[in-house]
Amino acid sequence: MKIKTLHDLYVDKLRNLYSAETQLVKALPKMAKNASSGPLRSAFEEHLEQTRNHAERLEQIFDKLDARAKGKKCYAIQGLVEEGEELIDVEPEAPVLDAGLICTAQKAEHYEIATYGTVCTWARQLGLNDHLELLQQTLREEKATDEKLTRLAEAGINQEAISPA
Amino acid sequence: MKIKTLHDLYVDKLRNLYSAETQLVKALPKMAKNASSGPLRSAFEEHLEQTRNHAERLEQIFDKLDARAKGKKCYAIQGLVEEGEELIDVEPEAPVLDAGLICTAQKAEHYEIATYGTVCTWARQLGLNDHLELLQQTLREEKATDEKLTRLAEAGINQEAISPA
Repeated sequence: MKIKTLHDLYVDKLRNLYSAETQLVKALPKMAKNASSGPLRSAFEEHLEQTRNHAERLEQIFDKLDARAKGKKCYAIQGLVEEGEELIDVEPEAPVLDAGLICTAQKAEHYEIATYGTVCTWARQLGLNDHLELLQQTLREEKATDEKLTRLAEAGINQEAISPA
Repeated sequence: MKIKTLHDLYVDKLRNLYSAETQLVKALPKMAKNASSGPLRSAFEEHLEQTRNHAERLEQIFDKLDARAKGKKCYAIQGLVEEGEELIDVEPEAPVLDAGLICTAQKAEHYEIATYGTVCTWARQLGLNDHLELLQQTLREEKATDEKLTRLAEAGINQEAISPA
């Protein structure tokens, strides 16, 4: 794809985000399954539902753009998904695994916060206000998930991980 | 490496960060060279100096831990570096490239903000206050760089990228 204008770059980054969201839809069930804290498992399950909505919102935007809903492989999220899987494979004690899964999930959230933040700014500058509304909804949910994960880590998971049983 | 406790996970994530910082030390000169806005080029050059310091601070921490300063490949940052290089290779107009480089750099900053945020929390909970001080200095600099990049984008680079000459 040629990238000549900010609009082209905007579409390019939306495709990156679409790849990120669809990769996360596949990865979150495994993260939920391996979380031993009930509230953490629920948080991942709830975020899976949100992530499906985020992908659908991007599809709506591609539709508005008359563009095909097509991802452009997001290697950063692929790396994070692999990092999470590697940790699961070394079979740490339950609270250590939970703390590690939270760390990986927060990296993914921040990746998305940075990217949605940028595409929101671009959508505003390009006068695409109907896109902006959809992207801002997602951005708010990503930030709320990040904050919820911090609360879960600090409410006990990290403490248990210091000297796991 | 076996990961049995939060302390093991902490060292594991420090190795990830060390890999991230050393990859960025290699990538930032190319980003600076390809930035056409003077203030953006300066921001990348200044951040290169900071990034070298961040790597050195991690070396100090490995020293305190009597551990070898050794990275554990950070695939997320590798993906972001490739994303930046791909954009440079398609040769967009100067302000579009600048806007895209800012986007990629902010994703890297957010990756680091999430990870340093987590290791700061863990260092505090593990009672490693001398590490915490070093990690917090870096975290502050990553956040300041992210904010500076937002200001540069919004001060004119994005606007120029809408209809580049």
